[in-house]
Order: sequence, then structure tokens, then C-alpha cells
Amino acid sequence: VPLVEWFLFHHVDSPEGSLVVAQSEVDVPFAIKRVYFLHSIPPTQVRGKHAHKALTQIAVAVKGSCSFHLDDGHDQADVKLDSPSRGIILHPNIWREMYDFTPDCVLLILASAHFDEADYIRDYEAFKHAARR
Amino acid sequence: VPLVEWFLFHHVDSPEGSLVVAQSEVDVPFAIKRVYFLHSIPPTQVRGKHAHKALTQIAVAVKGSCSFHLDDGHDQADVKLDSPSRGIILHPNIWREMYDFTPDCVLLILASAHFDEADYIRDYEAFKHAARR
Repeated sequence: VPLVEWFLFHHVDSPEGSLVVAQSEVDVPFAIKRVYFLHSIPPTQVRGKHAHKALTQIAVAVKGSCSFHLDDGHDQADVKLDSPSRGIILHPNIWREMYDFTPDCVLLILASAHFDEADYIRDYEAFKHAARR
Repeated sequence: VPLVEWFLFHHVDSPEGSLVVAQSEVDVPFAIKRVYFLHSIPPTQVRGKHAHKALTQIAVAVKGSCSFHLDDGHDQADVKLDSPSRGIILHPNIWREMYDFTPDCVLLILASAHFDEADYIRDYEAFKHAARR
């Protein structure tokens, strides 16, 4: 899988305002089982710092901006989310760290499964070791 | 069904930031088939102006605030959404109009079905007539 895969949301922009939409198993390549968002993140804070074994997610800054550091165990990339209609797909086995949150940033995430602590890889060395196999 | 039903999201607030979460068919009383959000709505704009025959939705202002005018054909209510962890459940057969969007408002909606134009009731008199039966 690609380290960085952008996800362009369907959106309608008009003088009456903008609408951005994602449909489960239509444009979103999975059934949306969980929706969550982060807000009021201090600009110096780094979030994430984990990978997932099976979970796929789509992340989009619906307000403000933040950056993602992505790492598949071999390559690394940094991307900035700064558009409410352009997100990224977070595939399994990608280490992610989010940083540089603007004070107004709201980061929305659509996830393919309910919360499951057993799906998290929270130790970077363990992640690197697994990626080397 | 009640005209106004609040939906309190599970949320975690800490000095590292806030997380708000909703899980399909766990706390959310339906399978999330569609997620959409409105942004950049002019403060003088009125959105919505329809009811749904079968669709159930949850709406929350993840940033800023806006107000909902709700009407079940018998009673009317106006509520303000101004918290990222307190939304409302929009049941079927409720006429809704959204107004007083702050310039920074992002209104997130979780919906129980994919988009279906046939599910919309866009004529208020037809809505009132159906509600009277």
C-alpha cells in the first residue's frame, strides 16, 4: 500500500456554503464503524504515536490544519492537512504522529472498526521489528 | 418520538486536547452509512428546509455554533448547538431549518442511510398535511 494516499471528498461549494460528504462503502472503501474527532489540541502537542494492525481510517482537518508524520517501517513522509475536502487514508501498519495543530483545528477521523485496544501497536521498536519481517 | 432529543457524545478532555467519539450501532442508535459536514455557511443563510421520511441523523457543531428550528407538524422548538460533545438526534418526519451559523461553524452530521432524494420532503405544506394524518 502507498505510504501517502490522499482521499478527495465529494463536496459542493456555493455562495450558500459548503457541503462535504462521505458514504460508507460507496466512496469510503470500508463500512464506517466509528467516527471521532480531535479538537483543542495545544500547538506543541504530538498525538497518535501508534500504528494499527488491521484498522483503516480516513483523516481530514475539517477546520484549521495539522500535519501527519507517516512511517511504514521503511519510508517516512510528512503531509499537511489543510483542506476540509482533502483527507488521507491511513492504512494498517502505518505509524502515525500528528503535530502542528492550529488552535482552531478539528481533525475528523472515519474508522473501519469499533475501538479495540488489541489492534494498537504502541511501541515503535515493536512496530519497526514487525515491519522488517 | 420527542421533538428535541439531545445526544451526548462520549468524550475525553485533557491538557493534551479533546477527543469526541461515536460508534456505529453502539452509542449511535443506527449504522452510520453517511457522514457529511457543512462549513463556510454565511451567517444570514438558512439551510435544511426539509424533513425525511425514514432517515435518522445526529447533528453536532464540532466548531462554532448554529441553531436548529424543529417542527413535527404540531409543535416547534428552537435549539442552539454550541458544544462539540452535545448534538441532537434528528428523527424522521421532523422539519428542520438551520440558521445563525457563526463564521467558523462546522456542522457534522451522521446519517443512517446513503443519500436518497426520494426520502426528502421538501414542501412544507405537504409535510404539514402528512403530519396531520
